[in-house]
Amino acid sequence: MIGHKSFAVLAEGTITTPKGFRAGGVYSGIKKVQRFDLGAVVCDVPAQVAGVFTTNKVTAAPLEVTKESIAQEGKLQVMLVNSGNANACTGAQGDADAREMRELFAKAIGVRTHYVGVTSTGVIGVPMPMQKIRDGVPALAAALSAEGGDDFCQAIMTTDLVQKSVCVHLEIDGKQVSVAGAAKGSGMIHPNMATMLGFMTTDAVVQDGVLQQLLSEATDVTFNMITVDGDTSTNDMVVAMASGLAGNEPLHPGHPDWEWFVAAFRYVAETLAKEIARDGEGATKLIEVNVSGAGSDADARAIAKTIVGSNLVKSAVYGSDANWGRIIAAAGRAGVEMNPNTVDIRLGDIPVLKQSSPLLFDEGAAKAYLDGTEVAIHVDLHGGPGKATAWGCDLTYDYVKINASYRT
Amino acid sequence: MIGHKSFAVLAEGTITTPKGFRAGGVYSGIKKVQRFDLGAVVCDVPAQVAGVFTTNKVTAAPLEVTKESIAQEGKLQVMLVNSGNANACTGAQGDADAREMRELFAKAIGVRTHYVGVTSTGVIGVPMPMQKIRDGVPALAAALSAEGGDDFCQAIMTTDLVQKSVCVHLEIDGKQVSVAGAAKGSGMIHPNMATMLGFMTTDAVVQDGVLQQLLSEATDVTFNMITVDGDTSTNDMVVAMASGLAGNEPLHPGHPDWEWFVAAFRYVAETLAKEIARDGEGATKLIEVNVSGAGSDADARAIAKTIVGSNLVKSAVYGSDANWGRIIAAAGRAGVEMNPNTVDIRLGDIPVLKQSSPLLFDEGAAKAYLDGTEVAIHVDLHGGPGKATAWGCDLTYDYVKINASYRT
Repeated sequence: MIGHKSFAVLAEGTITTPKGFRAGGVYSGIKKVQRFDLGAVVCDVPAQVAGVFTTNKVTAAPLEVTKESIAQEGKLQVMLVNSGNANACTGAQGDADAREMRELFAKAIGVRTHYVGVTSTGVIGVPMPMQKIRDGVPALAAALSAEGGDDFCQAIMTTDLVQKSVCVHLEIDGKQVSVAGAAKGSGMIHPNMATMLGFMTTDAVVQDGVLQQLLSEATDVTFNMITVDGDTSTNDMVVAMASGLAGNEPLHPGHPDWEWFVAAFRYVAETLAKEIARDGEGATKLIEVNVSGAGSDADARAIAKTIVGSNLVKSAVYGSDANWGRIIAAAGRAGVEMNPNTVDIRLGDIPVLKQSSPLLFDEGAAKAYLDGTEVAIHVDLHGGPGKATAWGCDLTYDYVKINASYRT
Repeated sequence: MIGHKSFAVLAEGTITTPKGFRAGGVYSGIKKVQRFDLGAVVCDVPAQVAGVFTTNKVTAAPLEVTKESIAQEGKLQVMLVNSGNANACTGAQGDADAREMRELFAKAIGVRTHYVGVTSTGVIGVPMPMQKIRDGVPALAAALSAEGGDDFCQAIMTTDLVQKSVCVHLEIDGKQVSVAGAAKGSGMIHPNMATMLGFMTTDAVVQDGVLQQLLSEATDVTFNMITVDGDTSTNDMVVAMASGLAGNEPLHPGHPDWEWFVAAFRYVAETLAKEIARDGEGATKLIEVNVSGAGSDADARAIAKTIVGSNLVKSAVYGSDANWGRIIAAAGRAGVEMNPNTVDIRLGDIPVLKQSSPLLFDEGAAKAYLDGTEVAIHVDLHGGPGKATAWGCDLTYDYVKINASYRT
């Protein structure tokens, strides 16, 4: 998917590496355990912004407020986030609370209200503990710094086990440009914005109107291609902010380095997406499903997502069971046309099915492969040019354990 | 759904209670453990037949053979079933094997080949052990009897823990008419015929062409409204056979007792469907989701199935966690229009959400209710006349355990 490799991954980079960004995180008391639960990423100047939002009909209050902010001028300086409470299904009070959060933080750091976006993640249906937020906002404003990327990553975590952050840089018009991102998972991850928050920053100068399309297209092949459990949340969103401080010529599809920038941007999105899948609740393995030979890319996407979302496939991977029958059965119920008689399947480099007929394969080698922490499933339908990749994780006892007792 | 109650459940009845049917089961060696794995239900006369089949694009060989048999004359005398091997993804050999099974059994009991239907359930992609079938068929033919209903039920089981069987009788035109059924689950159960086999028998005289519509409509609100894990199998089907030996006037929608017969028929289908859901792999609880106030019945069905199929809802029920937030979030991603602000939710008799706002409720009472083995979730959308009921089960450690090691 990534054609160019002419960008570098900055191991130490965070969401604040692109010029103009600061971030921070504090503990305000929303979470029962003392871990950061209020964070913000802030741009020194009004940044161009793009966003993609959950397709769930039940949408949390802060998403509506953020959409309003973005709609006003197409710019943001702040994404304010809390974890521990989703402010979803909280009625008119929830809407008022999200607006108060926006107002509080705008005043605390002296920016215009509509330059602030707000988002929340955590339990549904519990009113926001607004006094804790009111007390926490000044501390968060004071904590913002160019070194605050890691604190921000911690502040957005819920059941995540690891921070998710990535930063790349590249040269455009002789200027160094950075693209970075931070994200949280980890249950309820599903194509079309499940409980997933993604934040991307860049200092690139991007021509007006281009960032949204860039983000939407990148999301289709990255964040929307991961699934943990098929549930889609009320709160999820990915927001990209471009400060424009790198000093390059405005990027657009006609710019000579456009493809390079797109590749870097997608790399950031794909890395975050894979990290979310790998850290799915209870997961022990990252599963990557590559589908080729479908009638169209859309068909391939549907099949790849159905396979990677199948509880039976996920359980089999957990058990290191080379059960390709479940893979082809999942493909068959993806709701798209396919020839059931021309399917090849490989597990890593091990062919197990050829033209829909079982191959003899070394069960020991297959088990050894499936015992690894990354499992690639390759499905070739021999029916057209369509291809896609989806990511997910295995289904384990711990997934059930975590989700049987999340609220209590 | 069942308007009339004027039929009686026969506790001792089986699939052979309707006049004209015999059944049996034997161990032929397909299963590794010594449990019945080859069974048949046989009608003394060519029975009218109706069938519904998996929507999976990857269809097992025996389904095609059965469809061919039915297409020839619309009648069957035999449904031959084996468990332990699905004869799916077995290529041309699988097709030949299914045809040989049909031929072998037709000869063994002296009926025409196209009066025999064949179906298989078990692992995918492994060639049928035909020598075992050849050896087993004479034993099965000899084992057929009017008392063979239970043996048949055992022969169709895979990971099922309990037999699934039901029989009702009612009076039509002064004649006693029976309707009975047997089924197997239990993983890979999902709307549109997941790994589920259903067999229904009746001795009613049914007018030509009416049985198929009756079965299709009953399936839509019963077998297609259950889900265990969202996976749909290559092999699933429900077949209904009517011997016509009860001596009533031919049943059709204009017959004065038609509704009564429909109610009995649906009761049998619904009972089997619920038993399958209750016995889902690893399940400890039956979950029933009732949706009302949707824009249409189709919308209500989509929402009910999405809720009952949500891993997060299923895990919460397992943990007796009154997490209604996951219920409304699942409703919101069902892909149908709904007003997110007018939703009521009850857990059993305990209201937890009113007009989409959380209610204070007794957590102890809710937990006590959810600790039961049957959990009813009621969702009223206040948006129209549409309603539907779906059934499923909780998601447990044992589901993962069973499916992490099924093949090996």
